[in-house]
Amino acid sequence: MAKKAKGKSPASKWVYGFGGGKAEGDAGMKELLGGKGANLAEMSTIGLPVPPGFTLTTEVCTYFEERGQSYPDDLEAELDLALASIEKIVGAKFGDPANPLLVSVRSGGRASMPGMMDTVLNLGLNDETVEGLATLSGDARFAYDSYRRFIQMYASVVLGVEHHQFEELIEFGKDEKGVTLDTELEADDWKTLVGRFKAMIEENLGMPFPLDPRDQLWRAIGAVFASWMNQRAITYRRLHNIPDDWGTAVNVQAMVFGNMGENCATGVAFTRNPSTGENAFYGEYLVNAQGEDVVAGIRTPQNLTLAGKAANKSKLPAMEEVMPDIFGQLDTVRRTLETHYRDVQDIEFTVQKGMLWMLQTRTGKRTTQAALRIAVEMAQEKLITREEAVARIDPLALDQILHPTLDPNANITILTRGLPASPGAASGIVAFTADEAEALAGKGEDVILVRIETSPEDIHGMHAARGILTARGGMTSHAAVVARGMGRACVAGAGELRIDIPARQMTVRDVSVKAGERITIDGGAGTVMLGEVPTIQPTLSDEFETLMSWADGARRMKVRANADTPVDVRAALDFGAEGIGLCRTEHMFFEGERIVAMREMILAEDEAGRRSALQKILPMQRRDFAEIFEIMAGLPVTIRLLDPPLHEFLPHQDHELEEVARAAEVDVAHVRRRVARLYETNPMLGHRGCRLGITYPEIYEMQARAIFEAAIEAGAKTKQTIVPEIMIPLAATKAEIDILKEVIDRVASEVASREGIKLDYQVGTMIELPRAALRAGEIAKSAEFFSFGTNDLTQTAYGLSRDDAGNFLPDYQAKGIVPHDPFVTIDIDGVGELISIACERGRKTRKDIKLGICGEHGGDPASIAFFETVGLDYVSCSPYRVPIARLAAAQATLGKKGGDGTA
Amino acid sequence: MAKKAKGKSPASKWVYGFGGGKAEGDAGMKELLGGKGANLAEMSTIGLPVPPGFTLTTEVCTYFEERGQSYPDDLEAELDLALASIEKIVGAKFGDPANPLLVSVRSGGRASMPGMMDTVLNLGLNDETVEGLATLSGDARFAYDSYRRFIQMYASVVLGVEHHQFEELIEFGKDEKGVTLDTELEADDWKTLVGRFKAMIEENLGMPFPLDPRDQLWRAIGAVFASWMNQRAITYRRLHNIPDDWGTAVNVQAMVFGNMGENCATGVAFTRNPSTGENAFYGEYLVNAQGEDVVAGIRTPQNLTLAGKAANKSKLPAMEEVMPDIFGQLDTVRRTLETHYRDVQDIEFTVQKGMLWMLQTRTGKRTTQAALRIAVEMAQEKLITREEAVARIDPLALDQILHPTLDPNANITILTRGLPASPGAASGIVAFTADEAEALAGKGEDVILVRIETSPEDIHGMHAARGILTARGGMTSHAAVVARGMGRACVAGAGELRIDIPARQMTVRDVSVKAGERITIDGGAGTVMLGEVPTIQPTLSDEFETLMSWADGARRMKVRANADTPVDVRAALDFGAEGIGLCRTEHMFFEGERIVAMREMILAEDEAGRRSALQKILPMQRRDFAEIFEIMAGLPVTIRLLDPPLHEFLPHQDHELEEVARAAEVDVAHVRRRVARLYETNPMLGHRGCRLGITYPEIYEMQARAIFEAAIEAGAKTKQTIVPEIMIPLAATKAEIDILKEVIDRVASEVASREGIKLDYQVGTMIELPRAALRAGEIAKSAEFFSFGTNDLTQTAYGLSRDDAGNFLPDYQAKGIVPHDPFVTIDIDGVGELISIACERGRKTRKDIKLGICGEHGGDPASIAFFETVGLDYVSCSPYRVPIARLAAAQATLGKKGGDGTA
Repeated sequence: MAKKAKGKSPASKWVYGFGGGKAEGDAGMKELLGGKGANLAEMSTIGLPVPPGFTLTTEVCTYFEERGQSYPDDLEAELDLALASIEKIVGAKFGDPANPLLVSVRSGGRASMPGMMDTVLNLGLNDETVEGLATLSGDARFAYDSYRRFIQMYASVVLGVEHHQFEELIEFGKDEKGVTLDTELEADDWKTLVGRFKAMIEENLGMPFPLDPRDQLWRAIGAVFASWMNQRAITYRRLHNIPDDWGTAVNVQAMVFGNMGENCATGVAFTRNPSTGENAFYGEYLVNAQGEDVVAGIRTPQNLTLAGKAANKSKLPAMEEVMPDIFGQLDTVRRTLETHYRDVQDIEFTVQKGMLWMLQTRTGKRTTQAALRIAVEMAQEKLITREEAVARIDPLALDQILHPTLDPNANITILTRGLPASPGAASGIVAFTADEAEALAGKGEDVILVRIETSPEDIHGMHAARGILTARGGMTSHAAVVARGMGRACVAGAGELRIDIPARQMTVRDVSVKAGERITIDGGAGTVMLGEVPTIQPTLSDEFETLMSWADGARRMKVRANADTPVDVRAALDFGAEGIGLCRTEHMFFEGERIVAMREMILAEDEAGRRSALQKILPMQRRDFAEIFEIMAGLPVTIRLLDPPLHEFLPHQDHELEEVARAAEVDVAHVRRRVARLYETNPMLGHRGCRLGITYPEIYEMQARAIFEAAIEAGAKTKQTIVPEIMIPLAATKAEIDILKEVIDRVASEVASREGIKLDYQVGTMIELPRAALRAGEIAKSAEFFSFGTNDLTQTAYGLSRDDAGNFLPDYQAKGIVPHDPFVTIDIDGVGELISIACERGRKTRKDIKLGICGEHGGDPASIAFFETVGLDYVSCSPYRVPIARLAAAQATLGKKGGDGTA
Repeated sequence: MAKKAKGKSPASKWVYGFGGGKAEGDAGMKELLGGKGANLAEMSTIGLPVPPGFTLTTEVCTYFEERGQSYPDDLEAELDLALASIEKIVGAKFGDPANPLLVSVRSGGRASMPGMMDTVLNLGLNDETVEGLATLSGDARFAYDSYRRFIQMYASVVLGVEHHQFEELIEFGKDEKGVTLDTELEADDWKTLVGRFKAMIEENLGMPFPLDPRDQLWRAIGAVFASWMNQRAITYRRLHNIPDDWGTAVNVQAMVFGNMGENCATGVAFTRNPSTGENAFYGEYLVNAQGEDVVAGIRTPQNLTLAGKAANKSKLPAMEEVMPDIFGQLDTVRRTLETHYRDVQDIEFTVQKGMLWMLQTRTGKRTTQAALRIAVEMAQEKLITREEAVARIDPLALDQILHPTLDPNANITILTRGLPASPGAASGIVAFTADEAEALAGKGEDVILVRIETSPEDIHGMHAARGILTARGGMTSHAAVVARGMGRACVAGAGELRIDIPARQMTVRDVSVKAGERITIDGGAGTVMLGEVPTIQPTLSDEFETLMSWADGARRMKVRANADTPVDVRAALDFGAEGIGLCRTEHMFFEGERIVAMREMILAEDEAGRRSALQKILPMQRRDFAEIFEIMAGLPVTIRLLDPPLHEFLPHQDHELEEVARAAEVDVAHVRRRVARLYETNPMLGHRGCRLGITYPEIYEMQARAIFEAAIEAGAKTKQTIVPEIMIPLAATKAEIDILKEVIDRVASEVASREGIKLDYQVGTMIELPRAALRAGEIAKSAEFFSFGTNDLTQTAYGLSRDDAGNFLPDYQAKGIVPHDPFVTIDIDGVGELISIACERGRKTRKDIKLGICGEHGGDPASIAFFETVGLDYVSCSPYRVPIARLAAAQATLGKKGGDGTA
């Protein structure tokens, strides 16, 4: 294929023929011939019955678009030759009134693309050839019905005449005759209508309907190519990252008819069940029908197999019993195709007068459950290798089977939409504050917490809720990140939502929902529904476990989880995490007494006051860490020292401030002053991370003490050596790490000498600022590991606040300025280069430096593929993403970018 | 020198002798011998009378610190040899009771450093040698006075005995004798006191005062080296970027005495007047005195020259008349030193019994006015080259002569201190709002505008005021940047200030200042003073003009100015700007009707509404641009399209919101909603810069139209070709520039075809995001020039909000984490690498791409030196910094890093 694709030059071959047991193309030539054309060629070559035809390559399309809709000089001659070849195989002539060749014209690019001209059937019919068709088929009604269908289709898709104008004429014709069904119209009726169609078209366009078949063909081809650049197609490509220069191919193929009588049929099938993955032929057919009838839903399609008939409790006969011979041929085709393509195929076929013709084959879309079963079984059948099985599952699709989903049969009333921030479906009664959510959950209620946006103060309510809905914020807003970490469903940034907290209700346009009323959210789809919608709980199949074990065997990178609480840590372990890559210590500071002590610390006038408050927090932190170390029992745990700016721990409402003042036994004016002093214009770039540690070393000192004491405690309990990895956040310089490492080392040696134990630990840093990435060589002199904080690195490299980007980032994606949300999939060109630089310089200084990533991108397959290329040691993501990351990491190692066409 | 310095090895030479007309070192060996030692050696070599001595090198210090305060093995032997050499020259022996050699021990590093052990004189005296000294000098009182002084000094600086304990014993002694002056004590009295001193010391330290001269010497040397690592010295070094490993040298030198009688004297002098720069010998002396007496202020020093005596209206005789011979020798020394060192020297000398001895020479500190005159005159005298003259002026020192300064003779009461945000001294009455400042200024009052922090809404008040004082914000806060741009004095971030706007007063601790009361600020020093302090207006000397013309001839980079209004642009031109590197269009939006139209635009519901509001702004923008183009008459002008987030244009106070609603004829609730919607968590990383242009292309369209129409108008008036440079801010991708360039190009071709004129213009971008720097190669495909926005680039590369950094950045500097404020001097290692990368990649794509910088660093000499290394075409800074930048750019071209020791 590579050789042929290289031949892009003015001397190109523009047309590739197929049919009659051979073909000029093959399945490997999808770039040049499109998916449909390449597969038609392939089927011809392997001896399957394919109506002859030819493909105009995607290069013709590119030529056409680049040179003002003109064609290469030699195209016409090539097309004439190819057409002649069809005529020869079929034994009919294009435009021959006595024995006309009819063709279909279909677009067919590398990726299927709605918005483009699709299909014209029966091309070649005109007032003369229709008579030939009538004679040959012995069915004048069939011939005229075909003719009028052709005119309708052609006028609609090629000439742009509106559909309803034909419908009106047909209705008028039926009224004239006094009938109600199309089937009641006879040959002459259609003939009359054809005349009226042509007149109407001429009136509309100011020119007659083209009756010359060659004229019809060239215009149809031109329409396909022109549709490549229509607005819908362009928009679709932008949204799906399809380059404009791919172009589309055009397939011209001899018509076969499934509607020439009772020995004719048409159908579609999957070589295995696309819903369950069962290795059974699965499909539907209709006797005496054209392809579109099967999918149009006018007639009820019948099952292909007896088993299918039984399973569907159908009374209509199966093909297996009606046309056993043809079915036998089709079943052979099924086996041929699976063996040849080594994957489930989605096929279309037509039976014309007892003769089977294959019209299409392509990789069959399937559910995730089916994809797992098919992949595992095909590997067990030795049809594919285990590596191929692993490569075929779309890691993102696993989300479907790891979270509850909506019952597909349920009726739903959508209230509004937001971003699909954290997958899973959840129903519950609405609570507008975290406290209320917690209280209701305490009474056994399922709760959906609804907030304008969430903050660390809401954590307990988020934990208590089944799902979270916010009016503001993006895919990496606080709500989204925390919900994914906890495995709670979340719809974020539902911009239509007006939340009125005092009135305890929310409104979308004129629909209001009060606190206590029930809603359902689908965090995978971003939908918010009224009332309770039944959900289906996930069950993990044996095939899932098998495939994941193969994936684990294949991958190089370790997969860790970002988890802050013992509950989350346990969940992470259950999902197969091999360590904790990010344990954020601040989430521990918001509960109960802790926040009181934390605030006391912040409000303290001096170091002594801070130390006394920290002394109260110490045992609680130690307990948390000890529990986490015990659960992980020797697996690595990376603990990040306090990161957020202190003002996040103080409330802002008057009555809360008074409460804080009371609790801390200080004047409320003092609290207010402190809040005012801590105010920051850009908190993201403010006094946070290790900058706090530099200003208040006593905080990090307390945290280091809690970590070391917990490690000793857990080590004694588990009989494992606990080697904590202590991570310094937001460093921009080596000096910051040196100063803080000194604090940590001092605490370590104090604890060690007091306990008479040798402490093993590592001190490393987050690389989350561009400067840190550039200075990684120097920083690595002091840091024993790097963990890339890609959220912040993206914010700073791009100058883009993830909390605020919602105002324009969707527009940026729509306009194609950014190919995808850089907070979801890593920006390889910019942020990625910083990571590459940091890895390279870090390794140069410290050969064995441990490199990982703990930003949100750690759970994104496309990003994981990039992390493999720079050789990170591990990725870390939220617990519920761990299986996705395990699979994606395996695929990355296997050097494959993604799965097959799983839905 | 290089050769000698290389000899750093265990086989090093540790001791360098000098005296007797030769020396082992020279002036080039400051790193090894310290400044003092190197110059003593140099003076010896060129034949000046220097008391013999030797220098222990800085390497001994490093050895001492690194090896637990021990010395190299061979040091003692080298020292013995050097000491013997002194003894031989002087003809006396160290510790010889009959003919004792006395020495001084002084520290002397590469840079002078307070906090270290300084000087011990008369070392070598003890109960025996003091008698020898008495005999030799024939003056027992002199001998015992010297002895007791030695004990006091030695005990204080070497042994750490507190000074006051000696004072008390002396007082007691005088009481006993019934006298009041030290001079009334006689030889025996001092002898008695010496005994008491020794007893007191022994009681304090538990060991006797060391009487063995060698013991005295080694301990003094050890004290000097140890003082290198004392806390005060360490702190000083951190603050002044002096590396710990420089170390200090120790100079041991034979004593000479200026206090042995009337044929003795001591003095200090400058080879030219350090205050005016006049080429006249300038200095003071005292007969029969020791060096410390001249500076101690106990006796009134006398003038060296008759001219000096006349100028100072002194009645005391000049040395020129008292000791004409010695004066003649000294004047010869003066000429020798200037010719030899090619710069003004600051010297110390002693006359012992009619014999002149030189004790020190170093480069003389001088005022900026003097520095200019000296440099220019020395170049005219051919003593130095013009390039050297240019290199010798500290560009930052020019600030002194470009702005009003406080009268140094005025009495001042400092209220508080802040950051020296914009130089100049200004007095005025306090106003707490911009409107009030404007109103008062309209009545002819001098006003100081005092704000917690300023915002773009305050611009008119800042313009009206003489100076600005803020309680919050750093060196690059809004107040600081705008004040520097306008040439207003500004003290920013005066953290002690409590401003109570309703009460119309500000308070520092218990001192309050009410609106209408008068204060004075010194923006160069960061001080805030009560009442009016007289100021001195700057006058620019001929020497300034001469030197600047030499600088202009020497530099490669162009110097432009950041200026937004015709007034500022004119000021920039007056200061020698060769173009406008940054014209911020948003500052134009805040005045009068403009802000009303701007707000109408922001509040509009749709594009049509926005367009109608923009239509009102168009003629005003056009007028501004036309005026600017006319003033610059063909010089390049870079206009930045709208940059700040829209919320900056909306007020936040209730009554203001109501006003805006009334003016825009909309509901106040609508205004409130809009304000709420525009709220951003991190506005610095939000919806601003070209992101606004992408969302609202009509804004940039209007601005482009105003620019092109103004260029045509100004072109017609000035008969110059105006080539506007249109700058797109905050781009992160090439796509953003492509989309906006299309808008600009379309407007250009519309205007051009309407006017029938060919328009010449460039479209470029700011590089102010790390991603943009990395993607510069791609961006340069579309951008015709880059202007580095180093403020934002520093903020994003460092993850550091300049508005918030004030909370911890000073601490970071104090702890040595950052060597300097990265918003003042560019962070070469991090931000600098991004600039280098962008320059390299930009040039690779577009060979002749124009590269400049318009961040605050454009006026910082150290940063300008860096910009020269990456080959920028120009720097752009605030108008009042233009002379500084011109000089700094010249020095950068000359490859020199800074000036000499000008103060």
